[in-house]
Amino acid sequence: MNLRLDRDKPIPLARQIQAQLERLIRERLLVPGAKLPATRELAQTLGVNRATVALAYEELCAAGFARAHVGQGTFVADAGPVGARPGGAAPAAAPGAGERPPAMNWSALFSRSAQIIGAEEARAAAPARTDGQVISFAGGMPDSGLFPTEAFRRVLNQVIREEGESLLQYYPAGGYPPLRAYLSTYLLRFGLEARPEDILIVNGSQQGFDLIARTLLDPGDVVAIEEPTYPRALQVFRSFGAQLVPVPWDAGGPRVEVLERLLERQAPKLFYCQPSAHNPTGLAMAPERARRLLAAAARHQVPIVEDGFDGSLYYGARPATPLKAADRGELVIYIGTFSKVLFPGLRLGWLVGPQPVLERLQAAKQLADLHTSALIQAAVHRFCERKLLDRHVARARREYARRRDLLLAALRRRMPAEATWTEPTGGFSLLVTLPPELDAEELLPQAAQRGVAFTPGAPFFVDGDGGHALRLSFSSVAAGRIDEGVRRLAEAIKAARSRERGRAPRVRLAVPVV
Amino acid sequence: MNLRLDRDKPIPLARQIQAQLERLIRERLLVPGAKLPATRELAQTLGVNRATVALAYEELCAAGFARAHVGQGTFVADAGPVGARPGGAAPAAAPGAGERPPAMNWSALFSRSAQIIGAEEARAAAPARTDGQVISFAGGMPDSGLFPTEAFRRVLNQVIREEGESLLQYYPAGGYPPLRAYLSTYLLRFGLEARPEDILIVNGSQQGFDLIARTLLDPGDVVAIEEPTYPRALQVFRSFGAQLVPVPWDAGGPRVEVLERLLERQAPKLFYCQPSAHNPTGLAMAPERARRLLAAAARHQVPIVEDGFDGSLYYGARPATPLKAADRGELVIYIGTFSKVLFPGLRLGWLVGPQPVLERLQAAKQLADLHTSALIQAAVHRFCERKLLDRHVARARREYARRRDLLLAALRRRMPAEATWTEPTGGFSLLVTLPPELDAEELLPQAAQRGVAFTPGAPFFVDGDGGHALRLSFSSVAAGRIDEGVRRLAEAIKAARSRERGRAPRVRLAVPVV
Repeated sequence: MNLRLDRDKPIPLARQIQAQLERLIRERLLVPGAKLPATRELAQTLGVNRATVALAYEELCAAGFARAHVGQGTFVADAGPVGARPGGAAPAAAPGAGERPPAMNWSALFSRSAQIIGAEEARAAAPARTDGQVISFAGGMPDSGLFPTEAFRRVLNQVIREEGESLLQYYPAGGYPPLRAYLSTYLLRFGLEARPEDILIVNGSQQGFDLIARTLLDPGDVVAIEEPTYPRALQVFRSFGAQLVPVPWDAGGPRVEVLERLLERQAPKLFYCQPSAHNPTGLAMAPERARRLLAAAARHQVPIVEDGFDGSLYYGARPATPLKAADRGELVIYIGTFSKVLFPGLRLGWLVGPQPVLERLQAAKQLADLHTSALIQAAVHRFCERKLLDRHVARARREYARRRDLLLAALRRRMPAEATWTEPTGGFSLLVTLPPELDAEELLPQAAQRGVAFTPGAPFFVDGDGGHALRLSFSSVAAGRIDEGVRRLAEAIKAARSRERGRAPRVRLAVPVV
Repeated sequence: MNLRLDRDKPIPLARQIQAQLERLIRERLLVPGAKLPATRELAQTLGVNRATVALAYEELCAAGFARAHVGQGTFVADAGPVGARPGGAAPAAAPGAGERPPAMNWSALFSRSAQIIGAEEARAAAPARTDGQVISFAGGMPDSGLFPTEAFRRVLNQVIREEGESLLQYYPAGGYPPLRAYLSTYLLRFGLEARPEDILIVNGSQQGFDLIARTLLDPGDVVAIEEPTYPRALQVFRSFGAQLVPVPWDAGGPRVEVLERLLERQAPKLFYCQPSAHNPTGLAMAPERARRLLAAAARHQVPIVEDGFDGSLYYGARPATPLKAADRGELVIYIGTFSKVLFPGLRLGWLVGPQPVLERLQAAKQLADLHTSALIQAAVHRFCERKLLDRHVARARREYARRRDLLLAALRRRMPAEATWTEPTGGFSLLVTLPPELDAEELLPQAAQRGVAFTPGAPFFVDGDGGHALRLSFSSVAAGRIDEGVRRLAEAIKAARSRERGRAPRVRLAVPVV
């Protein structure tokens, strides 16, 4: 610990040390419970007598800022003396602090990207705070109750023991070679052919979006994007200054004729979609639609960014075939992730792309953060190689399919007739469309009061549409609570409708204000 | 595994399966040693009889593409039959493949950033290939021989056992709260006062550069940057389209009067420097220089990006004080990292900054990759809290100081009189300036032939300067090999000089070509 002492001042050094430690405690720079340095250690650092430090510590204890434990040392008190809390007495100025220069005007310095991100953050719906009472369909994550944590701990131990030193050193940006080789074979299950060198390891699909955006997008570029879509992908493209043009989904996938008209008028830099386990709807693209999409993209030479989520979480007889599997013109960049089938917290995903673009993506990856942790890559590789992933996915898929079935049954049983919803064949969620007079954002607090939460639909749409839509995720709601959750939601909807009917009709201006 | 079968074709299904597997093996989509799916499994996937798959496998084995192990299954052969290697017979076309559409012209789609990165990658000096014979001063990384790998394995086990489920789930972008609290106290050692909420956890200092650049820089912005400097920081700023203006170092740090003239003429968005363990020189900024730098930045309201490397790796009596410790105007964004004091491969670092900019940096972090692995954060926190980091750093610092001393002694003993070098007080390296007639890039292959490697200086300079400079890193060269390495380098220099003297003088055009 480095304190500024002024030996020319008439104030004793012990008093100066005490005052500065007091200030650090008041300003929470030293947190309650933190251990102060040993007196000998601090005396040496500051070049003072050990007794000087001991005296300062005694005074701190006497004033209630610290407490001494014999044989253990001196610790910051859990609650300071009265008046020492934030908002209490003004903090003692640091010796020699003098007047502070004017604070920097940071907001004048922000880049366009930072300004867009700032606005987006404010727009993004904050998930409702949930406690044990609330049944939350809001989180689009796997259920941590199903995590194979102990098995993962064991493979992590094995790889550290066997090759820890090289895994903890700097590592090549492309990724851990055995993991790239494993993925090459794994992807064949879905008909996707990629050599290990066609695969780049990244920090989850989120980093995939980012690297693709920085490799292909300049401010003002047009991005064609399915609607509804995954909000965090949308935000990334927008943060790079792209202009987003939506291509709406119907039951079979994004409407290719809309995309074609768009391709004729504008020249989008890419088209983004999630063909196999679409978030939020849980739908998959029909094979005929996929063929037409690829043909249109090839004709107009527009890359497709395929967010693969993970093909393993399907609830029908067999997984959907990725677009990339039929990509003979090398138009598709495929994004895969371990976040859904294994652990989101590892931040591990991959990109598959044609060599010319994969090289640039790898250069961008290297500039972004050098490489993804090789230790994590090696542990996941070992986990996969031992077939532990296959075993886990089989179990998780059965459980998620069961929850999906329960959710669909509860919706059929309980929802009012005017509400509709998608029937997911993959993924973690479905999309409900509310009766037209209801707005999902307004409904959320009322639903929360009844003990149920969801994600309002607006963030899944490009320009403020989706007000009547909401996403229900079934992946992390215990099977036994699903029906009760839907019962609460249906009640909230019914109550909101009767309130709406009692209200004066909203005035909508049909003619421009003149 | 998903293979495309055409049931309308007159070719038997077993033959179609065999032909497609052959193609996958020839094209290395199935790698040598990979296990083919069990016959029952593949038969089920493809909807064919199990005997059909068994027949296809037998034919593959007979043709030398696979081998069967009784009771274990069928595996891809280590070397295919003659003619099946890359460059041998043309690969069999996939059934129904027909003609490939024209390949996409990706390079026409690259963003300006990707174009800059591509060019930068070509410019960056590739590190010389080294084998056991070559003594390499090229790598600026900690010595993995000193890694406390086993101790880290133990804390990793503890945190997974205690809180594995929450550490493996999605996590807030700001970081693992106990690690932020620890860093708050840790930084006080260097006089740097930061509350936990002033600290953002990132994937190593490289991600720090990236997040700062995207938060502050638009294409065309001016960045003032010390020279020489860390090439990977320079590349990041350049990839965001910044125009870099160098501020040269002398023995006391960056020349503030040069920076001031620059501040008067142009309005740089930031000034980047490494004040405490400068890479490549190993020097630290003099306290008086730091005061003048802060005053100049405050006067012109220009942010300072302080790359802290890590203050713990110093070789004098006490660590240098970071600029951030004296930053009363909240001008400084500080970048810290565990890559030098612990393990580079974890990709763990942090930013300290004033709230207005830290909020934006956190929003950018969330868009970039959601968050840094909480598991790694928790393990490093436990490692630090148990004082294992302090113990490791004390040991590593002693060893690096010894290597530095040996390197300086060897240089004094062996280098020709015209060569000069910096005397590092921190970090991992020093900078040698060669006699003026020599170029470090040209010297490198000659040195490698004599069994010694280094990093040529040009990438540390903004615009192709630094040709006479080279960096020697002492951190990962065993103490016993340092003198021999310098002996080889000095010989290579002497040999190159005699060759230079024998050559006709280079013609330098002093007048413009007309």
